[in-house]
Amino acid sequence: MINIGLLGLGTVGTGVLKILEKRKEELIKITGDDINIKKILVRDLAKKRDIELEGGIITDNFDEILKDEDITIIVEVTGDLEEGYKYVSESLRAGKHVVTANKALVSKYFEELSDLAHKKKLALLYEASVGGGIPVIKPLKELIPFNDIKEVRGILNGTCNYILTRMEEGLDYAEALKIAQEQGFAEADPTDDVEGLDTRRKLRILGTLALQGQMPEENIIVRGISNITAFDISNINKMGASVKLIGEVKSCEGGYTAIVEPVIVESSSPFYNVGYEENAVFVKGDNVGDLMFYGNGAGMLPTANAVLCDLMDIIAGSYRLNNPLGNKKLMDLSLAIKGSYYLRISKINGELMDVFKSLADKVLSTGAQFALVTKHILRKDLIDLFENLGIEEKDYFIAKFDKINT
Amino acid sequence: MINIGLLGLGTVGTGVLKILEKRKEELIKITGDDINIKKILVRDLAKKRDIELEGGIITDNFDEILKDEDITIIVEVTGDLEEGYKYVSESLRAGKHVVTANKALVSKYFEELSDLAHKKKLALLYEASVGGGIPVIKPLKELIPFNDIKEVRGILNGTCNYILTRMEEGLDYAEALKIAQEQGFAEADPTDDVEGLDTRRKLRILGTLALQGQMPEENIIVRGISNITAFDISNINKMGASVKLIGEVKSCEGGYTAIVEPVIVESSSPFYNVGYEENAVFVKGDNVGDLMFYGNGAGMLPTANAVLCDLMDIIAGSYRLNNPLGNKKLMDLSLAIKGSYYLRISKINGELMDVFKSLADKVLSTGAQFALVTKHILRKDLIDLFENLGIEEKDYFIAKFDKINT
Repeated sequence: MINIGLLGLGTVGTGVLKILEKRKEELIKITGDDINIKKILVRDLAKKRDIELEGGIITDNFDEILKDEDITIIVEVTGDLEEGYKYVSESLRAGKHVVTANKALVSKYFEELSDLAHKKKLALLYEASVGGGIPVIKPLKELIPFNDIKEVRGILNGTCNYILTRMEEGLDYAEALKIAQEQGFAEADPTDDVEGLDTRRKLRILGTLALQGQMPEENIIVRGISNITAFDISNINKMGASVKLIGEVKSCEGGYTAIVEPVIVESSSPFYNVGYEENAVFVKGDNVGDLMFYGNGAGMLPTANAVLCDLMDIIAGSYRLNNPLGNKKLMDLSLAIKGSYYLRISKINGELMDVFKSLADKVLSTGAQFALVTKHILRKDLIDLFENLGIEEKDYFIAKFDKINT
Repeated sequence: MINIGLLGLGTVGTGVLKILEKRKEELIKITGDDINIKKILVRDLAKKRDIELEGGIITDNFDEILKDEDITIIVEVTGDLEEGYKYVSESLRAGKHVVTANKALVSKYFEELSDLAHKKKLALLYEASVGGGIPVIKPLKELIPFNDIKEVRGILNGTCNYILTRMEEGLDYAEALKIAQEQGFAEADPTDDVEGLDTRRKLRILGTLALQGQMPEENIIVRGISNITAFDISNINKMGASVKLIGEVKSCEGGYTAIVEPVIVESSSPFYNVGYEENAVFVKGDNVGDLMFYGNGAGMLPTANAVLCDLMDIIAGSYRLNNPLGNKKLMDLSLAIKGSYYLRISKINGELMDVFKSLADKVLSTGAQFALVTKHILRKDLIDLFENLGIEEKDYFIAKFDKINT
């Protein structure tokens, strides 16, 4: 009997139970053993749930799980940053392997927890923290011994991609967000998703692994999609292109660049057809070349599937004991990012228009909505210009063209 | 010191040595040990090679490697079916772990060798046998415990995809093949590639894993690309679509269908932008949903990278000991495959034209080259019709439309 402590019984936790129940027979055949969820930590014991539970299995007392010596593996799917941290670190200290889907937790405490797991010779696995059901963390870790990873880029947030896809179908931002909320893709407070903070956490995890050095979350430049308008979408679509929120880490001479921003991709891009709540991750290694992984970036069963693949690695003993993080000194060169940008400003006077026209490769519109395509410029110069001219973030939108991105 | 016996020093073998040399320091850091290629089996000791080798490392006598008890891992990259089989089975019997890139070998002896490795509690890994550098075998194996795999489809042969991409750029078949040969993508005798036999081997490997039952290579329907003409490409491109050689296994009520054939994909398909020598594999599981893996399907370094990822799993002990093959009884229902097909016949008389017109949803051309799009029909009926009317395979080309494929 393999005894598991499950922390959290929200969407992912429920998915874990559902798949384990559905695959019971196959799993006994493969492992020769019974995978038993012995205890489930919940906040509210009295809450009504749409899944049948054995009597006495749920508890609101973490210590009951921590002190249970039969429980050798913890599956943390609370989604709560600080509680999750407490549970995961205490579990590791108590000698229990951990699987977590908690991206905020992994992003914030990546070095500390990796180090702890390594010292205790325990597994700490977090495939579900990036890309939902898509296997990306594990393949990336496996590439590292044999490759200098040059680049990792991805559509990493299903909510943003869903909103952008629905806007390309004709909705405006508020309508698309509302539908995303109704469909359960977006939270009541969508800030973390639409402002790119969720993407940034995932990029920090991928980038830290890929470049084998520290890459603090808070240093990564981030710009979300909340300022995009139907007018922007229309301009971009007219160019035969599509806009996606992309997180990108690139290795470069002397350091790295890391940024989350809206990017305009042409129809020849592998990102172009990634629609709705789908995610995609692109990895470039010096030996393996270009790889792309694509699939459901969220959802109960895909995410639970990723959690369970990690769990199986622990049960089968097929995880690696080395600390996957490297200790390279990395210089953040993100302020040197250059590109050609789509730019739209609402409320602008003729004088300011002239300033921006001097940066333009092509002016798209000079009406109440002023829009242009810039020459190849330093991103920082553009942002500084907005600040110096007192143009507020809510009154403009920029997106980088994918093609010219040296 | 981890001692390896390398069998074969062609493209992939040379790539393995190159990457090991380049990553020497990183690998010692990760494994805490030296990965030592102790012996290399070659056919011709005197052959000049573009890689520097230690004196005495090469041998033309397999027994020297087999009987060396220091050598615990065999890397088989001979590319030769029957010799490879002898080496791999003898190595497993002698208690050595095996990594192989030999798809013909894995396809032909999949059950026997998996069984042998399982009984001897040894690793038998073959990531490089499908999709070159793309991690696909391992992620697929890891999905199986938690998913009924419903479908696996892929662009699995870089040579065919390269030829088709170059034809879409305006070359005819013979020109495109010649360039593929000059660039090293195609063999002097390209039969295995262009007739779909290589794709079929890879599909047999993926399908056997995915559906967890026997799926003999020789039963899989196969149709290659050697009959395609510039006229076909032009007709297909005019529809805004592209043609790819796709291997497809689908689980269906009571059994499965398996086929390798040219497929017409629209621009919204994730296969549409997979060009040149790239490969892509699509997997649908009942829990994980749709996944796609995409990357370099061939080439020295990507393929060597896949071999080395397997090798690292053996060194790190992070492989699984269970036999990954299942024993489900599977009924081959491929003769029930239906679809709408693009069809072109050269040399046809008016009477025969009328027979085919009765199948047509749309007639594209009635000149010397007769072309049409069929209604939704049984594939077998179409093939029987060609046979009954005495129309030889070299005089026609068919490709299935991706959209209507129930």
